[in-house]
Amino acid sequence: MKEYCIGVDVGGTTVKMGLFNRKGDLLDKWEILTRTENGGEAILPDIAASVKEKLVERGLTAQEVCGIGIGVPGPMNAQGVVPHTANLGWGYKEVTRELTELTGIPAKGGNDANVAALGEMWKGGAEGHRNVILLTLGTGVGGGIIIDGKVVVGAHGAGGEVGHAHVDENISGHCGCGNKGCLEQVASATGLVKLAREELEASREESLLRREPVTAKAVFDAVKAGDALAMRVAERFGKYLGKTIAVFTAVLDPEVVVIGGGVSKAGPVLLEYIRKYYLQHCYKSTREVAFVLATLGNDAGIYGSARLVLD
Amino acid sequence: MKEYCIGVDVGGTTVKMGLFNRKGDLLDKWEILTRTENGGEAILPDIAASVKEKLVERGLTAQEVCGIGIGVPGPMNAQGVVPHTANLGWGYKEVTRELTELTGIPAKGGNDANVAALGEMWKGGAEGHRNVILLTLGTGVGGGIIIDGKVVVGAHGAGGEVGHAHVDENISGHCGCGNKGCLEQVASATGLVKLAREELEASREESLLRREPVTAKAVFDAVKAGDALAMRVAERFGKYLGKTIAVFTAVLDPEVVVIGGGVSKAGPVLLEYIRKYYLQHCYKSTREVAFVLATLGNDAGIYGSARLVLD
Repeated sequence: MKEYCIGVDVGGTTVKMGLFNRKGDLLDKWEILTRTENGGEAILPDIAASVKEKLVERGLTAQEVCGIGIGVPGPMNAQGVVPHTANLGWGYKEVTRELTELTGIPAKGGNDANVAALGEMWKGGAEGHRNVILLTLGTGVGGGIIIDGKVVVGAHGAGGEVGHAHVDENISGHCGCGNKGCLEQVASATGLVKLAREELEASREESLLRREPVTAKAVFDAVKAGDALAMRVAERFGKYLGKTIAVFTAVLDPEVVVIGGGVSKAGPVLLEYIRKYYLQHCYKSTREVAFVLATLGNDAGIYGSARLVLD
Repeated sequence: MKEYCIGVDVGGTTVKMGLFNRKGDLLDKWEILTRTENGGEAILPDIAASVKEKLVERGLTAQEVCGIGIGVPGPMNAQGVVPHTANLGWGYKEVTRELTELTGIPAKGGNDANVAALGEMWKGGAEGHRNVILLTLGTGVGGGIIIDGKVVVGAHGAGGEVGHAHVDENISGHCGCGNKGCLEQVASATGLVKLAREELEASREESLLRREPVTAKAVFDAVKAGDALAMRVAERFGKYLGKTIAVFTAVLDPEVVVIGGGVSKAGPVLLEYIRKYYLQHCYKSTREVAFVLATLGNDAGIYGSARLVLD
């Protein structure tokens, strides 16, 4: 019986790795630098060398490992191929084939945000559920969709691109994707700061947000302190998210919506603002969907990529 | 080898049934009345009797049939249970268990719109694909989502309720579901007529639509005749659909979007209006999604319910 599995989460700066048993206990966690120079040619060999080293260190053989899962920052299709990932320097890359050859361990892979959703389903905020929507509110808005326990990869590896759902054509400026009016423009940490700046410029009203640099954290700290202007910002933020999540749930009818990423450190108050508008716009059969915070933080990716190989 | 399967599509007035071989050839098609009186207690026994009669007529035994699939107008969960279906008079009903007991043939079931999507994937407009979104533009807007060849049932049997995606809070009136601003309010046949009436009332501009009763067919006939007012109505209709479908594809990244229902009889011109706005709002990786018309018409339900039992 192969008792172990390995999860790898490739970021633009570091690669996080975890050794798990099949039950999902994280036995060891470590990281290495991501060397993106020369078209990222060293990334997979570096990962393979580090995995082999770890197995030796723990007295394990590759034969005791059932698989190695890998999450990457970009689309990966169902065949484990990445067409192009700017962050890592890769052009076309047969990621899972190469990693299998380098390690002698069967590899599976996926987009990092999709894989993180799987991690939250396995051992995080959505544990015990099979139908999950994850939104990660960070610098951008990422996400992942799980249907019946499986990640929705999509025909072009673009499943779960929740941040690029069109929400409002009156939003100023353009999204990084080139479109105008994407959820990411208003529901990321950056978007929250932008909404706060708009609100600050629209009046001379006193606010805690005038006394310090405007950050996502500052906005929700001010909300918790009862700051009226910050609360109006949170209402707008919650409305964009609640309305859009209601569209997602009308189509997918999940059991649970998980909110992660840096903005989610605001805690339960964030969920309240989202749920308020969700309930105003959701289809009646989906009123009972649970809203929870992600619990795995930066480890969601290694949990999820390890979980990939257990199917 | 069990060579045959049966598809049943239960409507409020008639029950359509089809006998198929495993390849998907429709060998026989017939229908019976839906007797909804007394809590719909006769519906399943009537279906079972009709199926048995058909098998005798064709010299087949129940042992030669691998399964009987049934689509119903309402939510059905993954266990084949309908909590309540107003149209049929049913309260809580264990549909697939009862139908299996009555026929001696293994039964599977699903919501009629979801099942129709499966039919279009098997032998209709989406044949050969595995990731499909179907929108049925009829009296209301229904639909179904197929991911990796399987229907998205959802946690409450409400998967694929595309008509209740919230699209615009400025839409006048309320949706049948109780909400305000649902896609169904503007993208159904009824919604199209409403948009046309609004446009007619807003001006005294000459239009073919002033010469006859305003119907969905009349609007698109006028569009084809170059009527300027009707073309503005079609633009608004296409914009609501194109924008909303772009949200669905950002999350699901399907290969194909199928448009069915009475309004789809307008033909390819309808797809052009939808695609125009789709391309303005979709995520870049999903630009290549194909838009096609449904081809099975009222037979989509029997095809799809037969297909259910082949997994």
